[in-house]
Amino acid sequence: MYQSKLFSKTRKEAPKDEVSKNAELLIKAGFINKEMAGVYSYLPLGLRVLNKINNIIREEMNQIGGQEIFLTSLQEKETWEKTNRWDDKIVDNWFKTKLKNETELGLAFTHEEALTRLMKDHIRSYKDLPSYPYQIQTKFRNEARAKSGIIRCREFLMKDMYSFSRNEKEHLEFYEKAKEAYKNIFKRVGLGDKTYLTFASGGSFSKYSHEFQTITDSGEDIIYLDEKKGLAVNKEVLTGTVLKDLDLEEKKLKEVKAVEVGNIFTLGTKFSEPFGLTYLDEKGEKNLVFMGSYGIGPGRVMGTVAEALSDNKGLVWPSEIAPFYVHLIEIGDKKEVRKMAEDLYKNLQKNKIEVLFDDRDLRPGEKFADSDLLGIPLRIIVSEKTLASGEYEIKERASEKVSMIKEKDLLNFVIEYK
Amino acid sequence: MYQSKLFSKTRKEAPKDEVSKNAELLIKAGFINKEMAGVYSYLPLGLRVLNKINNIIREEMNQIGGQEIFLTSLQEKETWEKTNRWDDKIVDNWFKTKLKNETELGLAFTHEEALTRLMKDHIRSYKDLPSYPYQIQTKFRNEARAKSGIIRCREFLMKDMYSFSRNEKEHLEFYEKAKEAYKNIFKRVGLGDKTYLTFASGGSFSKYSHEFQTITDSGEDIIYLDEKKGLAVNKEVLTGTVLKDLDLEEKKLKEVKAVEVGNIFTLGTKFSEPFGLTYLDEKGEKNLVFMGSYGIGPGRVMGTVAEALSDNKGLVWPSEIAPFYVHLIEIGDKKEVRKMAEDLYKNLQKNKIEVLFDDRDLRPGEKFADSDLLGIPLRIIVSEKTLASGEYEIKERASEKVSMIKEKDLLNFVIEYK
Repeated sequence: MYQSKLFSKTRKEAPKDEVSKNAELLIKAGFINKEMAGVYSYLPLGLRVLNKINNIIREEMNQIGGQEIFLTSLQEKETWEKTNRWDDKIVDNWFKTKLKNETELGLAFTHEEALTRLMKDHIRSYKDLPSYPYQIQTKFRNEARAKSGIIRCREFLMKDMYSFSRNEKEHLEFYEKAKEAYKNIFKRVGLGDKTYLTFASGGSFSKYSHEFQTITDSGEDIIYLDEKKGLAVNKEVLTGTVLKDLDLEEKKLKEVKAVEVGNIFTLGTKFSEPFGLTYLDEKGEKNLVFMGSYGIGPGRVMGTVAEALSDNKGLVWPSEIAPFYVHLIEIGDKKEVRKMAEDLYKNLQKNKIEVLFDDRDLRPGEKFADSDLLGIPLRIIVSEKTLASGEYEIKERASEKVSMIKEKDLLNFVIEYK
Repeated sequence: MYQSKLFSKTRKEAPKDEVSKNAELLIKAGFINKEMAGVYSYLPLGLRVLNKINNIIREEMNQIGGQEIFLTSLQEKETWEKTNRWDDKIVDNWFKTKLKNETELGLAFTHEEALTRLMKDHIRSYKDLPSYPYQIQTKFRNEARAKSGIIRCREFLMKDMYSFSRNEKEHLEFYEKAKEAYKNIFKRVGLGDKTYLTFASGGSFSKYSHEFQTITDSGEDIIYLDEKKGLAVNKEVLTGTVLKDLDLEEKKLKEVKAVEVGNIFTLGTKFSEPFGLTYLDEKGEKNLVFMGSYGIGPGRVMGTVAEALSDNKGLVWPSEIAPFYVHLIEIGDKKEVRKMAEDLYKNLQKNKIEVLFDDRDLRPGEKFADSDLLGIPLRIIVSEKTLASGEYEIKERASEKVSMIKEKDLLNFVIEYK
């Protein structure tokens, strides 16, 4: 894409009321817009990143048998009364609204109730199980404070998968697969090294749930980390019994701040029971369906990447989720330089490499500052020097390493870096 | 996909309170779920259709220079007071809600205000214009009655594009391009023959707006159609002056019911003025930005296709938006037949043809009835007869035409039909 056509502009300052590092950077770079505290819009570059994260999640969910659906935000009172989660005293982050006839409705903060009700039409026998519907859909949560940018929002996208199994054994087999899928996701979005499987509080049906916690200074959670074992325990559940359970030694644990980027949970029959979601087994006997839930916030992942991988010059995107892969920068206004840059732009596009081409009439310093702020993995400079030497200057955003590459080697260099 | 794995099931009856033909068919086929009146979830097959419609719209919008964004549903009072659209007496279909501190918020029923405010950060000079942001995002409308299935919802996806131009002339050039893009969209989703450019009421900045109206008996609008000219006039604006303007003769017009599947509108400076959205021109003078809006409801398009193209056996999907392209049906439980069907399934997939493979253990009659209800364009039957003759029976869903095709010609037949 030609940068001169991109409508979003970078800016020197974020809004004064913005206190989070991730939103500050993303607003300055023109990736998002702050509508109000905890409510952010996605502009073209931000949406490209978000969609890439969504697609990685989709691929991993489909890989383990997920089937994508799209539920609604508007929710009926009766559905949530079945599990005693309608009352604002019990669930304190509802946004409620009303139909014209004064019927109260809620805006879904999660979808266990809605989906369990729905699945009653589709599960009859053991042949209909297991089943793994998931969605990437907007959640509304009436947070009292929302000061963590796109890491904690009042309106945000969430991928929520729910598993419906015949029994605990079948459930646990899938639960392990989901764990691996989550690990793949965090690896692919570039958070693999900083993200730890973390034991957190469970429910009636399992001793623990599992969180995926990414280490960052601005994290709202505190976890205790055994780096060697690659495991962590959420402070909330850290007791002697837990340490013993997990074979961890307290003195080897490191206390760190972290962001919960995903969580998986055994629900058991907590929802299937109140809704009467049953199936007939091979013997014709009725059983309750055994459930699990698996959440990731794609926007939160994006915010965490912005927070954890950026430097003092701006954003640093891992290749698989970068808005573009190459930032092509033309320096000077000589016709031959322009032609050289245009030719390279077209050649890269022909080879399916996503390029943002800074064709704007600006001073080199401004272009470089913008480029650092945007954080695209590879920067290629075309200038009079390139014209004279036939060599392109390529700078890697993350390592700041600079290479001079001959035209004939350029495409290979770009593809191999990826 | 193996149909035995698909979690959504067909059903004999739609819910008793469902009165629209589109939702009745789509619920019976397991494409959607009714959460409450005017609120529908999308199940795997329905979401596949919806996403294909979204992608066609995306391609056509990108083609004319659109840049995709994603705005928020939660809206602040102050923004909408600027245009006098906050008051429930003036806009009667708001859903309103509240933050914990009692601050009132609205759920966006459209996004002119939010986007005009946002663009103030990104438009400074004539060089920043024109610009065409668009989104595919959820709208909430508190409809008093919602009896048209997914054609009129209280919560629904909408593609809304907004154009920001230097002046009326630049605006009108784009407006004509948008008209063509819309025609392409309706052609590609299979509604081209039934959809007419229709003159409707304009605003302060143009005599008319333009609707795209698709003829169906269940339509809520009445239009007057000149079939030869391929033009129509909405009943709301049909006067002698209008007929003269458009060079139409009243006696040649046909009165028909239709669904408004899209509309495009010249907004002029209606929104840029209250928000002070201006730009500096070449002479350094301040001007108001000239705007337009361009809407399509992808769910409404899907509902209209379900309504207008179905028959008494079920849905009939045009190729480009069908959930799958081939419905492969295996008849009988002979091992060799199964192998033959499996081989064909894999071969079609290898050739990037989307196949739903009915591998379920059901009677042929049930499979055929389900297949008619689902409405996938091509049905291929593999049975003992196929095994004996080496010929596959292919039935076209729309025309009901049956062909016997030899294995070596099968792939070509399928690809060419597409």
